[in-house]
Amino acid sequence: MDALQLDTVRISADKTYLEILDQTLLPNTVKVIQVRRIEDIREAIKSLRVRGAPAIGVCAGYAIALTASQIDTDDPIQFREEFLKHKAYLASSRPTAVNLFWALDRMENTMRAHLNKPVSKIKEILFAEAQAIRDEDVSISRRIGEIGFGLLRHGDGILTHCNAGTLATAKYGTATAPIYVARERGWTDLQVYCDETRPLLQGARLTAFELHGAGIDTTLICDNMASITMRRGLINIIFVGCDRVARNGDTANKIGTSGVAILAKHYGIPFYVCAPGSTIDMSLETGDQIPIEERAPEEVTEMWYAQRMAPEGIQVCNPAFDVTEHSLITGIITEKGLCKAPFDQAFEKLGFGR
Amino acid sequence: MDALQLDTVRISADKTYLEILDQTLLPNTVKVIQVRRIEDIREAIKSLRVRGAPAIGVCAGYAIALTASQIDTDDPIQFREEFLKHKAYLASSRPTAVNLFWALDRMENTMRAHLNKPVSKIKEILFAEAQAIRDEDVSISRRIGEIGFGLLRHGDGILTHCNAGTLATAKYGTATAPIYVARERGWTDLQVYCDETRPLLQGARLTAFELHGAGIDTTLICDNMASITMRRGLINIIFVGCDRVARNGDTANKIGTSGVAILAKHYGIPFYVCAPGSTIDMSLETGDQIPIEERAPEEVTEMWYAQRMAPEGIQVCNPAFDVTEHSLITGIITEKGLCKAPFDQAFEKLGFGR
Repeated sequence: MDALQLDTVRISADKTYLEILDQTLLPNTVKVIQVRRIEDIREAIKSLRVRGAPAIGVCAGYAIALTASQIDTDDPIQFREEFLKHKAYLASSRPTAVNLFWALDRMENTMRAHLNKPVSKIKEILFAEAQAIRDEDVSISRRIGEIGFGLLRHGDGILTHCNAGTLATAKYGTATAPIYVARERGWTDLQVYCDETRPLLQGARLTAFELHGAGIDTTLICDNMASITMRRGLINIIFVGCDRVARNGDTANKIGTSGVAILAKHYGIPFYVCAPGSTIDMSLETGDQIPIEERAPEEVTEMWYAQRMAPEGIQVCNPAFDVTEHSLITGIITEKGLCKAPFDQAFEKLGFGR
Repeated sequence: MDALQLDTVRISADKTYLEILDQTLLPNTVKVIQVRRIEDIREAIKSLRVRGAPAIGVCAGYAIALTASQIDTDDPIQFREEFLKHKAYLASSRPTAVNLFWALDRMENTMRAHLNKPVSKIKEILFAEAQAIRDEDVSISRRIGEIGFGLLRHGDGILTHCNAGTLATAKYGTATAPIYVARERGWTDLQVYCDETRPLLQGARLTAFELHGAGIDTTLICDNMASITMRRGLINIIFVGCDRVARNGDTANKIGTSGVAILAKHYGIPFYVCAPGSTIDMSLETGDQIPIEERAPEEVTEMWYAQRMAPEGIQVCNPAFDVTEHSLITGIITEKGLCKAPFDQAFEKLGFGR
């Protein structure tokens, strides 16, 4: 199974429903679900059937285009009001990844720019814009992959955390893109280590699935094995994705990323964040302003398990993300180029936030 | 359920079998198994029904006393030969924790010191020695708890990794002993955070079980949440156990411990190793000489789970322990006192390795 051939999310040919690869069932079952109601789309995002910041952005674009097409009015003003309700409802699905809000804002701006047109025409334009977001995501990931590939040397051991793979984007992934580019160039001597990424095991279930399926030399480790793996000299470079990057480079990504960065600093290993421009939030000064999603305790105490693996009544922390301080980040790879500290100046130079 | 009332391992009243609390079934089932054959005792150690360096030492003492009592000879020389076979067989169960070898060596020395006596008498002496190891373990843990308690301040947040609790010893635990002593002194304002400790979840299944059961304010986190928990200012001090400490203070403990120590250094949080003298191996110059047990991949890919959570065929690393460099350790708490760097001098001053 080559995951590069799988679409994480797409619109049906007749534009009446979304097809979402249900990632909660991987790696055991590859199943595409069809969703058309806005409640079901929001649930698919909230329960991580579709996940990964760029893929959430792509899904949000399609979702608002689809649900806008279901608005039964010819009045542009009424259409706009309904559109904004849909937007707010979809925006409430998950708080951390900025791509969700970025894509919804972009769709709103498109809607407003064409509000002088017939509603039926606006609906068409929104579908086209959603498709553009999707197509741009592929080229952005591709570009990040090429820049990241330039940082690789033959024989490198690469560590990644969570899944910033093709399953987290429209194609190629962000953190995995350099690895897929290397494969295309015929490199066969890279070793990839995947943190399993508790509690929801995106590294074990998704990254290991897609890289192993692509024939890449992939080894799964528990999150707490990253230190010994680095100490053993097996890791030369680290690529991770991100859900939101503040102006100063502080980066929110899947819980545990900041720990990986601290280990990397201790062992002297370069740590790169792969960041589509849509994840860079120039409105936030530092990572302290990024809201961190807190998820259900059951993900830690019982989800995936045949029986509980923690006592009844135990208190649980379950933050889904953490913030990696900019001082721990060697570079942030965007589609426009590699940024080094001071990151705010680098971002501005590349035109982010304009 | 107060885990302090549970015996991890004990000898039956008629001295014909061991009773082992099967920790693989916790936290859902509290079941004591009876084992009498040496193969079954070895299996109980290897498959972690009894685990934790001090408890393994106690179990090994009882085990060699029990299996020696089954040797059917009156000839001391033949008895010695059979004893040594049993010892080698039990010693092959797990490689990292030195307490196993320490207890077996101690039992062998006892056997040799009394080889001029009738075999029936030697058998009695061996049972008494095993009981002494168990009783000493309780007082050692208690002493470590009192020293560690002296490091606590009211309201402290305490992080621990894996289970160095009462379930890992005869009573009190090592890393948990300061917490139990604080409880006895009426302190009710400590917050304990337990790393769940993948892959076998000793933190979730055992530490959370015993501390929560003892009425202590306990919060479970995934291993990769330690960084954010420290960053949020919730952790003031860290206590961990150990399986073997080299002369220079390098400490082997459950996989992930070194990562916790690196995080602690980054965030400026004191990191203490709680080490019964029996875990200090003065014969090893550094931690690089400590053998690290590599366990089955299935523990990572499928154990505990209703279905696989990693793709078939994926490579897995599964080291059960790692080594924490001495430079990351604030202090090593032994029953004879708190050791600070340079650790080799501190160990010698306290008489370890004599």
